[in-house]
Amino acid sequence: MGENIGMAARALLNAALEDLRLVAPRDGWPNEKALLAASGADKVIEGAKVFGNVQEAVADCHAVYATTLRPRDMNKPVFTPRQAMTRIRGQAAKGERAAILFGPERTGLWSDDVAAADAIITIPLNPSFSSMNLAQAVAILSYEWFQTGDGAQLTPPPQRSPRAKQDELRAFMAYLEKTLDEVGYFHPPEKRQVMWHNMQSLFARAELTEQELRTLFGVIKQLALEKDE
Amino acid sequence: MGENIGMAARALLNAALEDLRLVAPRDGWPNEKALLAASGADKVIEGAKVFGNVQEAVADCHAVYATTLRPRDMNKPVFTPRQAMTRIRGQAAKGERAAILFGPERTGLWSDDVAAADAIITIPLNPSFSSMNLAQAVAILSYEWFQTGDGAQLTPPPQRSPRAKQDELRAFMAYLEKTLDEVGYFHPPEKRQVMWHNMQSLFARAELTEQELRTLFGVIKQLALEKDE
Repeated sequence: MGENIGMAARALLNAALEDLRLVAPRDGWPNEKALLAASGADKVIEGAKVFGNVQEAVADCHAVYATTLRPRDMNKPVFTPRQAMTRIRGQAAKGERAAILFGPERTGLWSDDVAAADAIITIPLNPSFSSMNLAQAVAILSYEWFQTGDGAQLTPPPQRSPRAKQDELRAFMAYLEKTLDEVGYFHPPEKRQVMWHNMQSLFARAELTEQELRTLFGVIKQLALEKDE
Repeated sequence: MGENIGMAARALLNAALEDLRLVAPRDGWPNEKALLAASGADKVIEGAKVFGNVQEAVADCHAVYATTLRPRDMNKPVFTPRQAMTRIRGQAAKGERAAILFGPERTGLWSDDVAAADAIITIPLNPSFSSMNLAQAVAILSYEWFQTGDGAQLTPPPQRSPRAKQDELRAFMAYLEKTLDEVGYFHPPEKRQVMWHNMQSLFARAELTEQELRTLFGVIKQLALEKDE
């Protein structure tokens, strides 16, 4: 189905993968629906190569992995997506090219194509409902590929304001304590220490930024003024 | 879109997740297209609850995670799917319920809904093409949820035949060596040891089963017979 091919192409490019090979696509090629469903991953669709059978499609690859939903009765290593991608990264580091085979949505891969593969990749799923959409399976394997690479570290978002330093936090806490004293918050007096420790923990845990500290200063100041009037 | 809701429901059930909550679905509810796209995950669709806004939808949850493709300029912890799911498993073990928010395909989540969340989940993706389909994002997060649980171990497929023991392997290797000697394979004689060591390594690495060993016995026997005739 063109839609599945397009969505698979989109999933590939999200993981910086571009080499898409199609074996005897049902609706011919090129396919307008595939381009539409790719949502901008045009270069994967336009660069896709079409082959008559699996054997030709993987001819220049060193390793071949077949994806199946359920383990088949074959004497072949079975890997989870994570295990497989770690392995393929290792193979790629030696200059070896790996192919990952996906079968059509409804039928899955032919047994002959699974038998000719080096190994099987199976996504561990709910044993009472394993029914994965083709493009979702491609998305999960692509995702795992990207996670095993160097690019998968999240860069922390730019903070609008740097984190407050301990002396700034202490200045705020001192102001807060003084103000709470003035308004008679610490009651009864024997609970004072526990109450204050709890409040210190709360603000310490929050990892406040300088900006947030200024905001809190303003809030307390304003509340104290209200109280005075 | 009904199709996206249906495909998301299917992805959830693949990870044994069933609690789907919809906020103001565009095309109303129930939606025939959602049921079709769910491909059998009917109970998730039929059990889906509809809310007027995000606040109501998460009212009975303890933790709220917002999924965004790009980190937003908010001072909030950002987790990868794997980090988030490990965290949510920990929260679940304490009896805390976590909600994961997904925005509409085209627009993503409203900033207000992201701001009200405890933390952000971002899928690390190709920096030059991050355009994830809603249902694929749900599939990846559901997949990571399942992987962090106990059910995610692959059970090795039943071997048709148990692995051959060392004495069986040695008997085959002895037969092979004798036969190769008879046909004058080891030539020149000074290379004999290296040639034989290479062959031993090859068969040792293959982790042959008893069945495969019997097959190889037959192959060698037949070849030797041909040679004799």
